[in-house]
Amino acid sequence: MNEKQKTISASRCVMTEIVLPNDTNGFGNMMGGRLMYLMDKCAAISAQRHANRVCVTASVDTVEFRTPIREGEILTIEGCVTRVFRSSMEVQLVVTAENALENTRRVCNKAFFTFVAIDDCGRSTPAPQIYPETPAEQVLYNSAAKRREARLYLSGRLRLEDSTYLLSDLLSAIASFGVEDAPS
Amino acid sequence: MNEKQKTISASRCVMTEIVLPNDTNGFGNMMGGRLMYLMDKCAAISAQRHANRVCVTASVDTVEFRTPIREGEILTIEGCVTRVFRSSMEVQLVVTAENALENTRRVCNKAFFTFVAIDDCGRSTPAPQIYPETPAEQVLYNSAAKRREARLYLSGRLRLEDSTYLLSDLLSAIASFGVEDAPS
Amino acid sequence: MNEKQKTISASRCVMTEIVLPNDTNGFGNMMGGRLMYLMDKCAAISAQRHANRVCVTASVDTVEFRTPIREGEILTIEGCVTRVFRSSMEVQLVVTAENALENTRRVCNKAFFTFVAIDDCGRSTPAPQIYPETPAEQVLYNSAAKRREARLYLSGRLRLEDSTYLLSDLLSAIASFGVEDAPS
Amino acid sequence: MNEKQKTISASRCVMTEIVLPNDTNGFGNMMGGRLMYLMDKCAAISAQRHANRVCVTASVDTVEFRTPIREGEILTIEGCVTRVFRSSMEVQLVVTAENALENTRRVCNKAFFTFVAIDDCGRSTPAPQIYPETPAEQVLYNSAAKRREARLYLSGRLRLEDSTYLLSDLLSAIASFGVEDAPS
Amino acid sequence: MNEKQKTISASRCVMTEIVLPNDTNGFGNMMGGRLMYLMDKCAAISAQRHANRVCVTASVDTVEFRTPIREGEILTIEGCVTRVFRSSMEVQLVVTAENALENTRRVCNKAFFTFVAIDDCGRSTPAPQIYPETPAEQVLYNSAAKRREARLYLSGRLRLEDSTYLLSDLLSAIASFGVEDAPS
Amino acid sequence: MNEKQKTISASRCVMTEIVLPNDTNGFGNMMGGRLMYLMDKCAAISAQRHANRVCVTASVDTVEFRTPIREGEILTIEGCVTRVFRSSMEVQLVVTAENALENTRRVCNKAFFTFVAIDDCGRSTPAPQIYPETPAEQVLYNSAAKRREARLYLSGRLRLEDSTYLLSDLLSAIASFGVEDAPS
Repeated sequence: MNEKQKTISASRCVMTEIVLPNDTNGFGNMMGGRLMYLMDKCAAISAQRHANRVCVTASVDTVEFRTPIREGEILTIEGCVTRVFRSSMEVQLVVTAENALENTRRVCNKAFFTFVAIDDCGRSTPAPQIYPETPAEQVLYNSAAKRREARLYLSGRLRLEDSTYLLSDLLSAIASFGVEDAPS
Repeated sequence: MNEKQKTISASRCVMTEIVLPNDTNGFGNMMGGRLMYLMDKCAAISAQRHANRVCVTASVDTVEFRTPIREGEILTIEGCVTRVFRSSMEVQLVVTAENALENTRRVCNKAFFTFVAIDDCGRSTPAPQIYPETPAEQVLYNSAAKRREARLYLSGRLRLEDSTYLLSDLLSAIASFGVEDAPS
Repeated sequence: MNEKQKTISASRCVMTEIVLPNDTNGFGNMMGGRLMYLMDKCAAISAQRHANRVCVTASVDTVEFRTPIREGEILTIEGCVTRVFRSSMEVQLVVTAENALENTRRVCNKAFFTFVAIDDCGRSTPAPQIYPETPAEQVLYNSAAKRREARLYLSGRLRLEDSTYLLSDLLSAIASFGVEDAPS
Repeated sequence: MNEKQKTISASRCVMTEIVLPNDTNGFGNMMGGRLMYLMDKCAAISAQRHANRVCVTASVDTVEFRTPIREGEILTIEGCVTRVFRSSMEVQLVVTAENALENTRRVCNKAFFTFVAIDDCGRSTPAPQIYPETPAEQVLYNSAAKRREARLYLSGRLRLEDSTYLLSDLLSAIASFGVEDAPS
Repeated sequence: MNEKQKTISASRCVMTEIVLPNDTNGFGNMMGGRLMYLMDKCAAISAQRHANRVCVTASVDTVEFRTPIREGEILTIEGCVTRVFRSSMEVQLVVTAENALENTRRVCNKAFFTFVAIDDCGRSTPAPQIYPETPAEQVLYNSAAKRREARLYLSGRLRLEDSTYLLSDLLSAIASFGVEDAPS
Repeated sequence: MNEKQKTISASRCVMTEIVLPNDTNGFGNMMGGRLMYLMDKCAAISAQRHANRVCVTASVDTVEFRTPIREGEILTIEGCVTRVFRSSMEVQLVVTAENALENTRRVCNKAFFTFVAIDDCGRSTPAPQIYPETPAEQVLYNSAAKRREARLYLSGRLRLEDSTYLLSDLLSAIASFGVEDAPS
């Protein structure tokens, strides 16, 4: 690993917060938008730690909010860059909520944000490559290519027939249940 | 239209803000997370106007940030409920940035958030049906079913073979470029 | 209407907010100062939309707070420039509070703010003329001259004997109840 | 002075703040609405100190902003209750801005806010009488009756012919310049 | 007293605040960190008033929080520069909490902060001398030298044998209880 | 180690933030009070993680600010409980600032805060014992007793002659330079 090579763990950012009254709706649950605000800040720090540049949010993949987070609970957000594509970086965020009084902890959300490094003139600029070190990081690194293809396809910048993973997955899926059973 | 029937336009929420220094990163651009915070608040108001209940964010579809918004610019977010599915509501958000000094205005983002109405015990509860009145609303209303299928599929709650729109679209796509050309 | 002519409706700004815990006093009512903060921001946006300049608050007419607004309620502020006088603009603000759970809505305040457009050196500079289009706008436009006279009189910049509307109104009022009945 | 009698000076509240970036518009000047937010908080404290009750803003008299306040300057707001009328209290606010680097200080605004004391059920309730002790306080106390009459007249709750000070002032004014010279 | 001589009272800063929901922990008590934030802002204003320079926090002496401050209570912080040492200034802060509803008031904290004046290049620069005028100010002024010695000793910048007050106090203390009784 | 025994590492809290414009003074340096606000929040989380109770700040030991932290830099605060004394817990905080653009990192502050666990009636209540696992934690754990003695002595709750560590240290210090050389 030469001096330009940087690890996923070096980009790791941990952010911890207590859920305050103004973070909640009229029901004592943390508002989704307040959580996304913190997730974005955490992701921006990870991206900047990796790229050593000002980094801006390019896109946010689907985020689900299945587990309400309550006023007074402790929120932990962990971010790391999972892979670099030319000028964009994928950042994974894992949100954990913790009830200190009951000594319980639960994962609430996982999400992927994409950031772009910016040069002094405000133009996107390449970020250094990143190297997975553990098996878990390798899995994230490999699957990032698939997620990127899905992102490009969903935003209309990639046609299905030009895709690699999407098309292959779909053909397998179709094969498994038989095209003849499909609705017309 | 009986008394229980409510229109899309009745759920409309317009939110206007000036981008202040603390909303920006070190480059004078509004942070993506701050924008998502405002989008979520706008969507929550639309959902509550429609459901007359406390509403909580269930999920946020992919959001892209292609157009930077600068400090001092005026931000307008327009939200409306596009369709109701049992206990969940899809809310569309359109973000416009405006440079008052140059008298220019540009659409920055479009996104879909899903909200769930909550009863007094904090459980999800049905929201009233919604009725599109204009052709544009009808288009949004119709396409909401497709977006919902994609959302369920992406979150692993719907199998491809049980889908309606997804499968049909895929089959058309595959038919159009020939399965034999696909990578193996 | 030539290119320099701008309409009242083009200056319209709608701002919507949920009343959060920190916006309230110890009784769950929104603090008057927090409401004035939002009204001023809404008025500034309207003025900047019209003048295409940075605009600063010159004065605020009497504001009454007859209707308390509760935590959790939705607040809507609508602003528009009603008339332009050389370098100053009068902005009308109408505040509506809405209880989404009870599906009720009530007008809480109406107020007039005066803004001045500022050039690049920080000096006041003329704003373009504004044109009323509807009968309601015409009424606001006409009465703005009276309000301005009252404002100048109250701030000691106009003598009663130099006024037009004030003096005429007072003479009518005095005539109607008979000067001889007045306390000495 | 019995135990129920309270002085104007006992209601005095001094609030000092530094003007931070988020308090300013795009020109480095403090926004008028931010200043009114602080003035209202200062006035509420004065009113609560006097009434020993939760107090809510009933109205704000005209506020003029003739002197811009710059980012980094020190803001001092002084409030005191000037007079009590049944359930309402008039609070005077004097705003001073100070440039610590240049060692200069200037009065920026004077304004009058009216507050109402609230009982445990949220209804307005009488506040104790207040006693001026110095000549300056006596002047403020006396002139408060005139300001109240003007306030009631402006809000349509007092007819000109039922007023004391207003009518008397107007008659003097008219006498001094001759009714026959007035515009018809 | 020549023109360069400035008084302690001229540096006095009074800051008043209401404790809002977001200032509190899950128990309705004001968080210690929020109080220190306000104390630091008050001390910075006192230091800047005295030095007529931007001033930065150099150190904070031990702060104890023996008296909880509740949501809705009124907080008053009074700061003044007590003494100037070359480029550093000691600022005393006294925090009072007041329950307006019960008409009670109690001193909560006393603390000493040290600030340094900064020149245009960001380097520390001498502040003008300060002159105590009252006996109480004289006591604070005198004892400041002792507190400074303790501060330098605690931060490892002064050896016990080079101290004046510390050593003298310790020798007196040791003399009073007899060295032979001390644990070995 | 039985089930009641908890480790120092289990109480660890990491908090990361970007320094925003409103966090700074007029010179682009983070305000000391803003940093103490974050340190206190981090310490409260560590204490609550350990005690599984609401915890309140009892005292803050001397904090020095030797290294300015600039707008746009990344701030990391790490807290952990170092030792438990009946109802109080000592929490160590280490503050690191990081310039992502220059890829540099520096330790800015170390400080000790003391927290007390609170029961449901708001009274202080014992916290569980804590167990150091590494040599570094053992050093912190051992020295905590000394720091506590100094804290009690400084707040007047312990006499020098009743102390263990303080007295012993002083006697050694005095022995090393010779009492006869001390100023009288």
